[in-house]
Formats: sequence, structure tokens, C-alpha cells
Amino acid sequence: MPYINIHLIEGRTVEQKREMADKITNVVSEVGMVPKEAVHILFVDLPKTNISKGGILTSDKK
Amino acid sequence: MPYINIHLIEGRTVEQKREMADKITNVVSEVGMVPKEAVHILFVDLPKTNISKGGILTSDKK
Amino acid sequence: MPYINIHLIEGRTVEQKREMADKITNVVSEVGMVPKEAVHILFVDLPKTNISKGGILTSDKK
Amino acid sequence: MPYINIHLIEGRTVEQKREMADKITNVVSEVGMVPKEAVHILFVDLPKTNISKGGILTSDKK
Amino acid sequence: MPYINIHLIEGRTVEQKREMADKITNVVSEVGMVPKEAVHILFVDLPKTNISKGGILTSDKK
Amino acid sequence: MPYINIHLIEGRTVEQKREMADKITNVVSEVGMVPKEAVHILFVDLPKTNISKGGILTSDKK
Repeated sequence: MPYINIHLIEGRTVEQKREMADKITNVVSEVGMVPKEAVHILFVDLPKTNISKGGILTSDKK
Repeated sequence: MPYINIHLIEGRTVEQKREMADKITNVVSEVGMVPKEAVHILFVDLPKTNISKGGILTSDKK
Repeated sequence: MPYINIHLIEGRTVEQKREMADKITNVVSEVGMVPKEAVHILFVDLPKTNISKGGILTSDKK
Repeated sequence: MPYINIHLIEGRTVEQKREMADKITNVVSEVGMVPKEAVHILFVDLPKTNISKGGILTSDKK
Repeated sequence: MPYINIHLIEGRTVEQKREMADKITNVVSEVGMVPKEAVHILFVDLPKTNISKGGILTSDKK
Repeated sequence: MPYINIHLIEGRTVEQKREMADKITNVVSEVGMVPKEAVHILFVDLPKTNISKGGILTSDKK
């Protein structure tokens, strides 16, 4: 605890996930006053065909 | 807001996702009285080996 | 299957949830070609202090 | 109901998922006093690059 | 890892959650060959008005 | 996109959520190269009786 789930458009690099994980963990640890070891993050990659905003798939946006 | 997550057996086409996204967004916008732009949908595809009902994997059902 | 999770701002009435559940189930059943009985929906209500867009809590928006 | 979501490091076999699904369904059915048919489980497999604990990706751990 | 999310109808006692947590952790640890300390479970309680199967809210079922 | 879900032990203040939302949004926007407006965060508060690590409820830990 805390447990963090992040849904992303696929294509983010491992470097980007590494940096996000590091920085988000620091923020949550400091603001939430919990040890870093207690902060868990999961990234779920989704293709653009699997995301919709306003009823339009991201893959259909120009 | 609202945020909608849909877990599906993999194999649904982009056309099916497009039609679901469009129609679900309309329903949620009308009934919930929110603008369509505020309705977000994520589809997560799962293989039949990753779904269980009643203790039986969907891939094991005949 | 399918399993649908809907995060909403708290305050939606039971009538609104009933109508959304009915209509979303019909859409997903027809477009996805699954029996209505297979469509599961969960609503999770969240206070405005628990939702952020663009780094601003919904409770802080005017 | 109940609906159970399990995020796993990818690489678990179908046999392991089958056994987990069977045994978890039995536990939840017995302790929760619900019929087995009402217990739904989804497994979501994640690569080691998509999991972080303490700010370190699992793929970076030695 | 693994991370387990369980959506339940509200009303389950702490004793039931304690027993489920203990037994599910043992199953996942043994079958998945991971230490018990690595098994994380979250219970999310939902009112009957927030669950739908087949388009019918659980609170509307007789 | 991205969509971020954070499960927390209940008791965090609105101030803590506001600061987490602001700082996480900045990190994800910068590292992921997306506009801040595209970053959505949901906080789900859970009581200590609803969280288990290693098979022990957090409410049972001393």
C-alpha cells in the first residue's frame, strides 16, 4: 500500500517506465509518508484500438 | 469521469470495439447527464486461459 | 465475460445506475454477440476529492 | 459476485492458472457462502518491465 | 506480485475477509511458487445497487 | 490517457491527495510527453480491514 495501476498507450519505452516508477514512488512516499518499499506500481499497455474518449477510438483520431 | 474498463475475451474486432465505444458513450452521457467528451473507455483483451467462472477456465469449457 | 467496471462521481441515483446497467448490457450483448446473462457490471462511486484531471482535483474545480 | 482480478508476472503456465482458479474458487465459495458458479476470476499477465516495487522495475532487480 | 483485487457485496465480516486472505495467499504462494510476503490482496466492498448481472441490479433481484 | 488508479489506506487528507495528484500529473506528463490535461487519476480509499499482505490483514498488524 499504496497500489498504483497505470494504463498507458503501448509504445512507451522501458526507460520511460523506469523513470515514471522512480519519480512516482518518490512523490507517493514523501506526500503519503510511507516507505518507498510499500509503493507498488503496475503498468498496463493498451493498443490505440482499445481506448475511447468521447465515443471515438484513439486509433480513429487524426 | 466516468471511467469505464471492459475486460473482453480476445478476438473482438476493432469494428466491434468502435461500435461498443460509440453506443456505451451515448448511453452513459445521456443517462448520467455528462458531456460525451467526459466518457472514457478502456478495453482489456484476455485470452480464454485467463478467465475462470465457477473454478473452470474458459479454455477448458466445451 | 465481459466484465465492466464503471467509476462514477458519487451522487448518481439508483435509477440512473439501473438504466445504465440495462442499456449497456443490451449494447454489449448485441454488439459482442454474447447472452445478456454473461454481461457483468460493477459501479464504483468516488467522491469529488478522489478524482483528478490535469492535476486538479474535481472538488477544486469551479 | 465476487469478482477477482489477479495481476501476475507473465510466464505462469495454464496448469498453474487452472489450479489457482479451482482452489481460489473453492476458498471464496466456502468462506463467502456463495455458489461456485458466482465466483469469477480474471488473470492479467504483465511483463517484468511493467511492475515496480520501491521505485525499481522488477526487470531491473538482480 | 501477485496483486489480487476482490470485489464483494458489502456485508462480509472482517472474519470472512481474514480467512479468505489467509487461504487465498496460501494457494497463490504454493501454486505460483512465490513467498507469501509477495501476495497482496485488496477487498473492495460494493452495495447491491452497484452490481449488475444480465442487465439487472442485484438490489432488484428477488 | 494515461489513466492512473491509486488504492490507499483511508485517512489520507484532501491536501495529500491534491499534492499527489499535482505532482504525479507533472511526472507522467513530462516523462510520458503527454499534455497534463490527458492525465487522469482516481483515488480509491480502503479501510485497513480490506488490505492483506502475506496473508495478514493490515488491521491485524501491530
